[in-house]
Amino acid sequence: MNEYKIIEIKKSIFEDNAKQADLLRSKLKKSGTFLLNLMSSPGSGKTSTVLRTAEFLKDEMKMGVLEADIDSDVDAMAVSRAGVKVIQLHTGGMCHLDAEMTEQGLDGLGTDGLDFVILENVGNLICTAQFDTGAVKNAMILSVPEGDDKPLKYPLMFSLADVLLVNKIDAVDFFDFNMDLLRSRAEKLNPDIIIIPVSAKTGEGMDIWIEWIRTEIRDWK
Amino acid sequence: MNEYKIIEIKKSIFEDNAKQADLLRSKLKKSGTFLLNLMSSPGSGKTSTVLRTAEFLKDEMKMGVLEADIDSDVDAMAVSRAGVKVIQLHTGGMCHLDAEMTEQGLDGLGTDGLDFVILENVGNLICTAQFDTGAVKNAMILSVPEGDDKPLKYPLMFSLADVLLVNKIDAVDFFDFNMDLLRSRAEKLNPDIIIIPVSAKTGEGMDIWIEWIRTEIRDWK
Repeated sequence: MNEYKIIEIKKSIFEDNAKQADLLRSKLKKSGTFLLNLMSSPGSGKTSTVLRTAEFLKDEMKMGVLEADIDSDVDAMAVSRAGVKVIQLHTGGMCHLDAEMTEQGLDGLGTDGLDFVILENVGNLICTAQFDTGAVKNAMILSVPEGDDKPLKYPLMFSLADVLLVNKIDAVDFFDFNMDLLRSRAEKLNPDIIIIPVSAKTGEGMDIWIEWIRTEIRDWK
Repeated sequence: MNEYKIIEIKKSIFEDNAKQADLLRSKLKKSGTFLLNLMSSPGSGKTSTVLRTAEFLKDEMKMGVLEADIDSDVDAMAVSRAGVKVIQLHTGGMCHLDAEMTEQGLDGLGTDGLDFVILENVGNLICTAQFDTGAVKNAMILSVPEGDDKPLKYPLMFSLADVLLVNKIDAVDFFDFNMDLLRSRAEKLNPDIIIIPVSAKTGEGMDIWIEWIRTEIRDWK
Protein backbone atom coordinates (compact mmCIF):
# COMPACT_ATOMS: atom_id res chain seq x y z
CA MET A 1 0.00 0.00 0.00
CA ASN A 2 1.32 3.44 -0.93
CA GLU A 3 1.83 5.86 1.90
CA TYR A 4 1.42 8.82 -0.39
CA LYS A 5 -1.29 10.26 -2.59
CA ILE A 6 -1.02 10.88 -6.30
CA ILE A 7 -2.72 14.01 -7.62
CA GLU A 8 -3.42 14.74 -11.27
CA ILE A 9 -2.70 18.46 -11.45
CA LYS A 10 -5.20 20.63 -13.32
CA LYS A 11 -4.23 23.48 -15.60
CA SER A 12 -4.52 26.84 -13.89
CA ILE A 13 -7.46 29.08 -14.60
CA PHE A 14 -5.68 32.22 -13.41
CA GLU A 15 -4.08 34.48 -15.96
CA ASP A 16 -1.94 36.47 -13.58
CA ASN A 17 0.55 33.94 -12.22
CA ALA A 18 2.76 36.58 -10.58
CA LYS A 19 -0.19 37.67 -8.46
CA GLN A 20 -1.10 34.09 -7.54
CA ALA A 21 2.52 33.44 -6.60
CA ASP A 22 2.60 36.44 -4.27
CA LEU A 23 -0.70 35.33 -2.71
CA LEU A 24 0.71 31.87 -2.10
CA ARG A 25 3.85 33.32 -0.51
CA SER A 26 1.65 35.37 1.87
CA LYS A 27 -0.32 32.25 2.82
CA LEU A 28 2.88 30.31 3.42
CA LYS A 29 4.25 33.13 5.56
CA LYS A 30 1.08 33.02 7.67
CA SER A 31 1.28 29.25 8.13
CA GLY A 32 5.06 29.41 8.73
CA THR A 33 5.83 26.97 5.92
CA PHE A 34 9.05 27.67 4.01
CA LEU A 35 8.63 26.41 0.43
CA LEU A 36 11.78 25.70 -1.58
CA ASN A 37 11.47 25.18 -5.35
CA LEU A 38 14.10 22.70 -6.57
CA MET A 39 14.76 22.65 -10.31
CA SER A 40 17.17 20.83 -12.64
CA SER A 41 17.53 18.76 -15.80
CA PRO A 42 16.35 15.17 -15.71
CA GLY A 43 18.86 13.01 -13.85
CA SER A 44 20.83 15.78 -12.15
CA GLY A 45 20.08 14.33 -8.74
CA LYS A 46 17.03 16.17 -7.40
CA THR A 47 15.56 13.17 -5.61
CA SER A 48 18.90 12.04 -4.16
CA THR A 49 19.42 15.59 -2.89
CA VAL A 50 15.95 15.62 -1.34
CA LEU A 51 16.71 12.30 0.38
CA ARG A 52 20.06 13.54 1.73
CA THR A 53 18.43 16.77 2.90
CA ALA A 54 15.74 14.80 4.70
CA GLU A 55 18.40 12.73 6.50
CA PHE A 56 19.74 15.95 8.02
CA LEU A 57 16.54 17.86 8.65
CA LYS A 58 13.59 15.55 9.18
CA ASP A 59 14.13 15.21 12.93
CA GLU A 60 14.92 18.90 13.31
CA MET A 61 11.82 20.34 11.66
CA LYS A 62 8.50 19.15 10.22
CA MET A 63 9.23 18.48 6.60
CA GLY A 64 7.23 17.62 3.50
CA VAL A 65 7.96 17.02 -0.18
CA LEU A 66 5.99 17.65 -3.37
CA GLU A 67 7.20 15.41 -6.21
CA ALA A 68 6.21 16.72 -9.65
CA ASP A 69 6.52 14.53 -12.71
CA ILE A 70 4.88 13.96 -16.05
CA ASP A 71 4.29 10.38 -15.07
CA SER A 72 5.34 7.65 -12.58
CA ASP A 73 5.61 7.78 -8.81
CA VAL A 74 9.13 6.37 -8.31
CA ASP A 75 10.31 9.55 -6.61
CA ALA A 76 7.43 9.78 -4.15
CA MET A 77 7.94 6.11 -3.37
CA ALA A 78 11.62 6.71 -2.53
CA VAL A 79 10.87 9.73 -0.36
CA SER A 80 8.02 7.98 1.42
CA ARG A 81 10.31 5.03 2.14
CA ALA A 82 12.68 7.50 3.83
CA GLY A 83 9.91 8.41 6.25
CA VAL A 84 9.11 11.85 4.88
CA LYS A 85 5.61 13.17 4.20
CA VAL A 86 5.26 13.30 0.43
CA ILE A 87 2.76 13.61 -2.38
CA GLN A 88 3.22 12.82 -6.07
CA LEU A 89 1.92 15.39 -8.56
CA HIS A 90 1.31 14.38 -12.16
CA THR A 91 1.34 17.26 -14.61
CA GLY A 92 -0.23 15.33 -17.48
CA GLY A 93 2.40 16.35 -20.02
CA MET A 94 2.86 19.91 -18.74
CA CYS A 95 6.54 20.71 -18.30
CA HIS A 96 6.20 23.18 -15.42
CA LEU A 97 4.27 24.08 -12.30
CA ASP A 98 2.87 27.55 -11.74
CA ALA A 99 1.69 28.96 -8.41
CA GLU A 100 -1.87 27.66 -8.63
CA MET A 101 -0.66 24.17 -9.55
CA THR A 102 1.80 24.28 -6.65
CA GLU A 103 -1.05 25.25 -4.36
CA GLN A 104 -3.05 22.22 -5.54
CA GLY A 105 -0.06 20.15 -4.46
CA LEU A 106 0.28 21.88 -1.10
CA ASP A 107 -3.45 21.42 -0.44
CA GLY A 108 -3.07 17.73 -1.26
CA LEU A 109 -0.05 17.37 1.00
CA GLY A 110 -1.57 19.39 3.83
CA THR A 111 0.85 22.02 5.15
CA ASP A 112 -0.61 22.16 8.66
CA GLY A 113 2.30 22.32 11.02
CA LEU A 114 4.92 21.84 8.29
CA ASP A 115 8.02 24.06 8.66
CA PHE A 116 9.72 23.19 5.42
CA VAL A 117 8.45 21.86 2.10
CA ILE A 118 10.59 21.05 -0.93
CA LEU A 119 8.91 21.18 -4.31
CA GLU A 120 10.84 18.84 -6.60
CA ASN A 121 9.84 20.45 -9.87
CA VAL A 122 9.59 18.72 -13.26
CA GLY A 123 13.01 17.79 -14.73
CA ASN A 124 13.57 20.65 -17.11
CA LEU A 125 15.80 23.73 -17.41
CA ILE A 126 13.42 25.77 -19.53
CA CYS A 127 9.70 25.77 -18.70
CA THR A 128 10.12 25.45 -14.94
CA ALA A 129 12.11 28.70 -14.87
CA GLN A 130 9.36 30.58 -16.69
CA PHE A 131 6.78 30.27 -13.90
CA ASP A 132 6.94 31.63 -10.37
CA THR A 133 5.71 28.76 -8.18
CA GLY A 134 5.13 30.92 -5.12
CA ALA A 135 8.14 29.38 -3.40
CA VAL A 136 10.14 31.48 -0.94
CA LYS A 137 13.44 30.54 -2.59
CA ASN A 138 14.59 28.85 -5.81
CA ALA A 139 17.31 26.24 -5.82
CA MET A 140 18.73 24.63 -8.91
CA ILE A 141 21.02 21.68 -9.47
CA LEU A 142 23.52 21.38 -12.27
CA SER A 143 25.38 18.10 -12.29
CA VAL A 144 28.99 17.89 -13.39
CA PRO A 145 28.38 15.53 -16.35
CA GLU A 146 26.01 18.12 -17.90
CA GLY A 147 28.90 20.48 -18.51
CA ASP A 148 30.01 23.98 -17.53
CA ASP A 149 28.41 25.63 -20.57
CA LYS A 150 24.83 25.38 -19.33
CA PRO A 151 24.52 29.01 -18.11
CA LEU A 152 25.11 30.08 -21.73
CA LYS A 153 22.18 28.00 -22.93
CA TYR A 154 19.67 28.26 -20.10
CA PRO A 155 20.31 31.78 -18.80
CA LEU A 156 16.86 32.35 -17.28
CA MET A 157 17.19 29.41 -14.89
CA PHE A 158 20.60 30.54 -13.65
CA SER A 159 19.49 34.15 -13.34
CA LEU A 160 16.63 33.37 -10.95
CA ALA A 161 18.21 30.65 -8.80
CA ASP A 162 19.08 31.79 -5.28
CA VAL A 163 21.37 28.83 -4.85
CA LEU A 164 23.07 26.51 -7.32
CA LEU A 165 24.12 23.04 -6.24
CA VAL A 166 26.83 21.62 -8.47
CA ASN A 167 26.07 17.94 -7.93
CA LYS A 168 28.08 14.78 -8.69
CA ILE A 169 31.20 16.71 -7.75
CA ASP A 170 32.79 13.33 -6.91
CA ALA A 171 32.85 12.74 -10.69
CA VAL A 172 34.60 16.02 -11.53
CA ASP A 173 37.89 14.37 -12.53
CA PHE A 174 36.08 12.08 -14.92
CA PHE A 175 34.52 14.87 -16.94
CA ASP A 176 35.79 17.93 -18.71
CA PHE A 177 34.21 20.38 -16.25
CA ASN A 178 35.76 23.71 -15.28
CA MET A 179 34.33 24.95 -11.98
CA ASP A 180 35.87 28.43 -12.31
CA LEU A 181 34.35 28.83 -15.76
CA LEU A 182 30.96 27.65 -14.50
CA ARG A 183 31.19 30.07 -11.60
CA SER A 184 32.04 33.07 -13.77
CA ARG A 185 29.31 32.22 -16.28
CA ALA A 186 26.67 31.81 -13.56
CA GLU A 187 27.75 34.94 -11.67
CA LYS A 188 27.67 37.00 -14.85
CA LEU A 189 23.94 36.22 -15.07
CA ASN A 190 23.35 36.38 -11.36
CA PRO A 191 25.98 38.11 -9.19
CA ASP A 192 24.24 37.06 -5.95
CA ILE A 193 23.98 33.36 -6.73
CA ILE A 194 25.32 31.03 -4.02
CA ILE A 195 27.22 28.12 -5.56
CA ILE A 196 27.74 24.95 -3.52
CA PRO A 197 29.60 21.93 -4.94
CA VAL A 198 27.99 18.78 -3.54
CA SER A 199 27.70 15.07 -4.01
CA ALA A 200 24.36 13.63 -3.00
CA LYS A 201 26.04 10.24 -3.43
CA THR A 202 29.04 10.69 -1.10
CA GLY A 203 27.56 13.45 1.07
CA GLU A 204 30.32 15.94 0.18
CA GLY A 205 29.23 19.56 0.65
CA MET A 206 25.83 18.63 2.06
CA ASP A 207 26.62 20.29 5.39
CA ILE A 208 27.03 23.65 3.63
CA TRP A 209 23.74 23.15 1.73
CA ILE A 210 21.93 22.24 4.96
CA GLU A 211 23.36 25.30 6.69
CA TRP A 212 22.14 27.45 3.78
CA ILE A 213 18.61 26.04 4.26
CA ARG A 214 18.68 26.55 8.04
CA THR A 215 19.83 30.16 7.65
CA GLU A 216 17.24 30.97 4.97
CA ILE A 217 14.41 29.56 7.07
CA ARG A 218 15.62 31.41 10.18
CA ASP A 219 15.96 34.73 8.35
CA TRP A 220 12.52 34.36 6.77
CA LYS A 221 10.67 33.60 10.00
CA MET B 1 33.58 36.38 -38.38
CA ASN B 2 30.90 33.75 -37.89
CA GLU B 3 30.50 31.24 -40.65
CA TYR B 4 26.91 30.55 -39.70
CA LYS B 5 23.68 32.47 -39.50
CA ILE B 6 21.55 32.88 -36.41
CA ILE B 7 17.79 32.85 -36.93
CA GLU B 8 15.21 33.96 -34.38
CA ILE B 9 12.48 31.38 -34.87
CA LYS B 10 8.90 32.64 -35.04
CA LYS B 11 5.97 30.90 -33.41
CA SER B 12 4.00 28.81 -35.88
CA ILE B 13 0.73 30.08 -37.22
CA PHE B 14 -0.48 26.62 -38.25
CA GLU B 15 -2.82 24.78 -35.94
CA ASP B 16 -2.42 21.35 -37.48
CA ASN B 17 1.20 20.44 -36.79
CA ALA B 18 0.77 16.80 -37.84
CA LYS B 19 -0.29 17.96 -41.31
CA GLN B 20 2.61 20.42 -41.56
CA ALA B 21 5.01 17.69 -40.49
CA ASP B 22 3.75 15.34 -43.22
CA LEU B 23 4.05 18.14 -45.77
CA LEU B 24 7.63 18.80 -44.70
CA ARG B 25 8.47 15.09 -44.96
CA SER B 26 7.12 15.06 -48.54
CA LYS B 27 9.22 18.09 -49.43
CA LEU B 28 12.31 16.47 -47.92
CA LYS B 29 11.63 13.28 -49.84
CA LYS B 30 11.45 15.28 -53.06
CA SER B 31 14.72 17.08 -52.36
CA GLY B 32 16.37 13.87 -51.13
CA THR B 33 17.29 15.35 -47.77
CA PHE B 34 17.13 12.93 -44.84
CA LEU B 35 16.28 14.89 -41.69
CA LEU B 36 17.14 13.33 -38.34
CA ASN B 37 15.67 14.86 -35.17
CA LEU B 38 18.08 14.48 -32.25
CA MET B 39 16.64 14.97 -28.77
CA SER B 40 17.93 14.69 -25.20
CA SER B 41 18.22 16.39 -21.82
CA PRO B 42 20.64 19.30 -21.49
CA GLY B 43 24.19 18.03 -21.31
CA SER B 44 23.60 14.47 -22.55
CA GLY B 45 26.05 14.98 -25.39
CA LYS B 46 24.01 16.01 -28.44
CA THR B 47 26.64 18.35 -29.84
CA SER B 48 29.53 15.95 -29.19
CA THR B 49 27.54 13.24 -30.96
CA VAL B 50 26.87 15.56 -33.90
CA LEU B 51 30.59 16.34 -34.11
CA ARG B 52 31.57 12.66 -34.01
CA THR B 53 28.93 11.84 -36.63
CA ALA B 54 30.26 14.58 -38.88
CA GLU B 55 33.79 13.15 -38.60
CA PHE B 56 32.50 9.91 -40.11
CA LEU B 57 30.02 11.22 -42.65
CA LYS B 58 30.93 14.69 -43.84
CA ASP B 59 33.17 13.45 -46.66
CA GLU B 60 30.74 10.69 -47.59
CA MET B 61 27.60 12.78 -48.03
CA LYS B 62 26.55 16.42 -48.08
CA MET B 63 25.68 17.17 -44.49
CA GLY B 64 24.09 20.05 -42.60
CA VAL B 65 23.13 20.78 -39.00
CA LEU B 66 20.35 22.83 -37.40
CA GLU B 67 21.27 23.86 -33.86
CA ALA B 68 18.24 24.83 -31.77
CA ASP B 69 18.64 26.61 -28.45
CA ILE B 70 16.88 29.11 -26.25
CA ASP B 71 19.94 31.30 -26.42
CA SER B 72 23.67 31.32 -27.30
CA ASP B 73 25.45 30.04 -30.37
CA VAL B 74 28.19 27.91 -28.77
CA ASP B 75 26.95 24.76 -30.49
CA ALA B 76 26.78 26.27 -33.98
CA MET B 77 30.24 27.68 -33.41
CA ALA B 78 31.61 24.22 -32.55
CA VAL B 79 29.94 22.57 -35.54
CA SER B 80 31.04 25.33 -37.91
CA ARG B 81 34.61 24.96 -36.67
CA ALA B 82 34.40 21.27 -37.63
CA GLY B 83 33.72 22.33 -41.21
CA VAL B 84 30.03 21.40 -41.33
CA LYS B 85 27.29 23.62 -42.77
CA VAL B 86 25.28 24.81 -39.79
CA ILE B 87 22.73 27.35 -38.68
CA GLN B 88 21.80 28.41 -35.15
CA LEU B 89 18.10 28.66 -34.33
CA HIS B 90 16.96 30.66 -31.32
CA THR B 91 13.56 29.69 -30.00
CA GLY B 92 13.10 32.76 -27.81
CA GLY B 93 12.14 30.79 -24.71
CA MET B 94 10.12 28.10 -26.52
CA CYS B 95 11.16 24.65 -25.38
CA HIS B 96 10.43 22.79 -28.62
CA LEU B 97 10.42 22.99 -32.39
CA ASP B 98 7.38 22.02 -34.45
CA ALA B 99 7.37 21.30 -38.17
CA GLU B 100 6.87 24.88 -39.29
CA MET B 101 9.67 26.11 -37.04
CA THR B 102 11.92 23.34 -38.36
CA GLU B 103 11.10 24.44 -41.88
CA GLN B 104 12.14 28.01 -41.02
CA GLY B 105 15.47 26.51 -39.98
CA LEU B 106 15.82 24.40 -43.12
CA ASP B 107 15.01 27.42 -45.28
CA GLY B 108 17.68 29.38 -43.43
CA LEU B 109 20.23 26.60 -43.83
CA GLY B 110 19.34 25.93 -47.46
CA THR B 111 18.86 22.21 -48.15
CA ASP B 112 19.80 22.37 -51.83
CA GLY B 113 21.96 19.35 -52.49
CA LEU B 114 22.09 18.27 -48.82
CA ASP B 115 21.74 14.51 -48.28
CA PHE B 116 21.59 14.50 -44.53
CA VAL B 117 20.57 17.12 -41.98
CA ILE B 118 20.65 16.67 -38.21
CA LEU B 119 18.30 18.82 -36.17
CA GLU B 120 19.82 19.20 -32.73
CA ASN B 121 16.63 19.96 -30.87
CA VAL B 122 16.30 22.01 -27.66
CA GLY B 123 17.70 20.23 -24.58
CA ASN B 124 14.56 18.82 -23.07
CA LEU B 125 12.87 15.43 -22.60
CA ILE B 126 9.31 16.75 -22.46
CA CYS B 127 8.23 19.45 -24.91
CA THR B 128 10.41 18.32 -27.79
CA ALA B 129 8.66 14.92 -27.78
CA GLN B 130 5.25 16.53 -28.04
CA PHE B 131 5.79 18.00 -31.52
CA ASP B 132 6.42 16.18 -34.78
CA THR B 133 9.23 18.18 -36.42
CA GLY B 134 8.72 16.63 -39.85
CA ALA B 135 11.94 14.64 -39.48
CA VAL B 136 12.24 11.25 -41.17
CA LYS B 137 13.51 9.60 -37.99
CA ASN B 138 13.78 10.48 -34.29
CA ALA B 139 16.93 9.78 -32.31
CA MET B 140 17.31 10.38 -28.62
CA ILE B 141 20.28 10.36 -26.29
CA LEU B 142 20.19 9.28 -22.69
CA SER B 143 23.51 9.64 -20.93
CA VAL B 144 24.59 7.19 -18.24
CA PRO B 145 24.82 9.77 -15.41
CA GLU B 146 21.12 10.63 -15.90
CA GLY B 147 20.10 7.19 -14.65
CA ASP B 148 18.26 4.12 -15.90
CA ASP B 149 14.88 5.27 -14.52
CA LYS B 150 14.25 7.91 -17.18
CA PRO B 151 11.83 5.82 -19.31
CA LEU B 152 9.52 5.72 -16.27
CA LYS B 153 9.44 9.50 -16.08
CA TYR B 154 9.56 10.58 -19.71
CA PRO B 155 7.66 7.79 -21.45
CA LEU B 156 6.55 9.79 -24.49
CA MET B 157 10.12 10.53 -25.57
CA PHE B 158 11.17 6.88 -25.32
CA SER B 159 8.02 5.67 -27.06
CA LEU B 160 8.63 7.73 -30.20
CA ALA B 161 12.41 7.42 -30.55
CA ASP B 162 13.50 5.17 -33.41
CA VAL B 163 16.94 4.88 -31.91
CA LEU B 164 18.29 5.49 -28.42
CA LEU B 165 21.95 6.29 -27.93
CA VAL B 166 23.12 5.53 -24.39
CA ASN B 167 25.96 8.03 -24.23
CA LYS B 168 28.89 8.40 -21.80
CA ILE B 169 29.05 4.63 -21.65
CA ASP B 170 32.74 5.01 -20.71
CA ALA B 171 31.45 6.30 -17.34
CA VAL B 172 29.16 3.33 -16.68
CA ASP B 173 31.30 1.90 -13.86
CA PHE B 174 31.27 5.24 -12.09
CA PHE B 175 27.50 5.48 -11.86
CA ASP B 176 24.76 3.23 -10.59
CA PHE B 177 23.35 2.46 -14.05
CA ASN B 178 21.80 -0.87 -15.02
CA MET B 179 21.80 -1.31 -18.80
CA ASP B 180 19.51 -4.36 -18.72
CA LEU B 181 16.97 -2.47 -16.65
CA LEU B 182 17.16 0.52 -18.98
CA ARG B 183 16.70 -1.77 -21.96
CA SER B 184 13.65 -3.52 -20.53
CA ARG B 185 12.06 -0.22 -19.46
CA ALA B 186 12.61 1.36 -22.90
CA GLU B 187 11.46 -1.73 -24.80
CA LYS B 188 8.31 -1.96 -22.71
CA LEU B 189 7.35 1.47 -24.06
CA ASN B 190 8.73 0.87 -27.52
CA PRO B 191 9.42 -2.75 -28.56
CA ASP B 192 11.07 -1.65 -31.84
CA ILE B 193 13.53 0.82 -30.31
CA ILE B 194 17.16 0.35 -31.35
CA ILE B 195 19.51 0.85 -28.40
CA ILE B 196 23.16 1.66 -29.03
CA PRO B 197 25.62 2.24 -26.16
CA VAL B 198 28.12 4.89 -27.25
CA SER B 199 30.72 7.30 -26.00
CA ALA B 200 30.99 10.47 -28.04
CA LYS B 201 34.14 11.14 -25.99
CA THR B 202 36.06 7.91 -26.67
CA GLY B 203 34.31 6.97 -29.91
CA GLU B 204 33.03 3.64 -28.54
CA GLY B 205 29.97 2.37 -30.39
CA MET B 206 30.01 5.20 -32.94
CA ASP B 207 30.57 2.77 -35.83
CA ILE B 208 27.25 1.05 -35.02
CA TRP B 209 25.47 4.41 -34.84
CA ILE B 210 26.97 5.50 -38.17
CA GLU B 211 25.94 2.22 -39.76
CA TRP B 212 22.38 2.76 -38.47
CA ILE B 213 22.32 6.21 -40.14
CA ARG B 214 23.73 4.87 -43.42
CA THR B 215 21.15 2.06 -43.52
CA GLU B 216 18.22 4.37 -42.70
CA ILE B 217 19.20 6.84 -45.42
CA ARG B 218 19.68 4.03 -47.96
CA ASP B 219 16.33 2.41 -47.14
CA TRP B 220 14.52 5.76 -47.32
CA LYS B 221 15.90 6.78 -50.69
